[in-house]
Amino acid sequence: MRFDLDRALEILERTPAAFRALLGGLPEAWTSPNEGPDTFSAFDNVGHLIHGERTDWIPRARIILAQGADRRFEPFDRFAQQRESAGRSTAELLEEFARLRAANLATLRGWNLGPRELALEGEHPELGRVTLEQLLATWAAHDLSHLAQTARVLAKQYREAVGPWRAYLPLLDR
Amino acid sequence: MRFDLDRALEILERTPAAFRALLGGLPEAWTSPNEGPDTFSAFDNVGHLIHGERTDWIPRARIILAQGADRRFEPFDRFAQQRESAGRSTAELLEEFARLRAANLATLRGWNLGPRELALEGEHPELGRVTLEQLLATWAAHDLSHLAQTARVLAKQYREAVGPWRAYLPLLDR
Repeated sequence: MRFDLDRALEILERTPAAFRALLGGLPEAWTSPNEGPDTFSAFDNVGHLIHGERTDWIPRARIILAQGADRRFEPFDRFAQQRESAGRSTAELLEEFARLRAANLATLRGWNLGPRELALEGEHPELGRVTLEQLLATWAAHDLSHLAQTARVLAKQYREAVGPWRAYLPLLDR
Repeated sequence: MRFDLDRALEILERTPAAFRALLGGLPEAWTSPNEGPDTFSAFDNVGHLIHGERTDWIPRARIILAQGADRRFEPFDRFAQQRESAGRSTAELLEEFARLRAANLATLRGWNLGPRELALEGEHPELGRVTLEQLLATWAAHDLSHLAQTARVLAKQYREAVGPWRAYLPLLDR
């Protein structure tokens, strides 16, 4: 699919509700297990998405749009949620994610981006030159990636309980 | 996690809303692409879940609970949705999935299953002897597996659009 801002928005505006439908009200028995060292629980996934709303997508888009002399992005802390989510509930995080996302999409829509802006570049600290279009496509794909990861970490809790069906559920061993 | 019927129900009752939040109102540009021959689009995933509600989980649970002489399950048609979903909209399928699931969970709750029933066995046509508990755990894990698969097939539409970020999104090449 070629990138189209309206198409990307269709994903970005649905993600918070999809996480809320899946995780809202789920007990910690589901939301707290992870997939091993340095992996995310369902709870961690939401915190990670919140950190992205605060520090990644829109701040990086601003750097690109400003086209200043230094267009290098701040590195993104993939584990910031370990500090930031401490002591909070899944319900609080789901709320905050939805609120931040709505505000960020209002900002994005307000920019009325066209092809000229979407082609502007910034500098990723590891990946080098990237366009605004690539950043926005990544925002949507990153959402979907963490939704898949969240479904996977939940499913893995039943790796043993499914018995012989494990052979039909490759996700449980991924 | 050890199997517990209440825990399993927490997943089973959330899945239809998670699919609706993710796919409700999405245009075919998102819902119709698949991952290649004999794979499912987002639309196909919902049809597949519907077919499971009709022919798999509860019918198989009934065979187990009846403990008749022949406890062998009917084979499950993984591609039945190709016929059954033809000409229908994603919105219709999402509605039907939610309705069938709600009815099936009412049936399941009405059985008041205890440890004795959960340990009863049926015969899977390929996997052999399986317990009711394993069937119910698989129902929940299967939901989560198809939610992950749906997020993945959507994300893959941006495999090219994300540019160099593809290196950070292994889901796009899975």
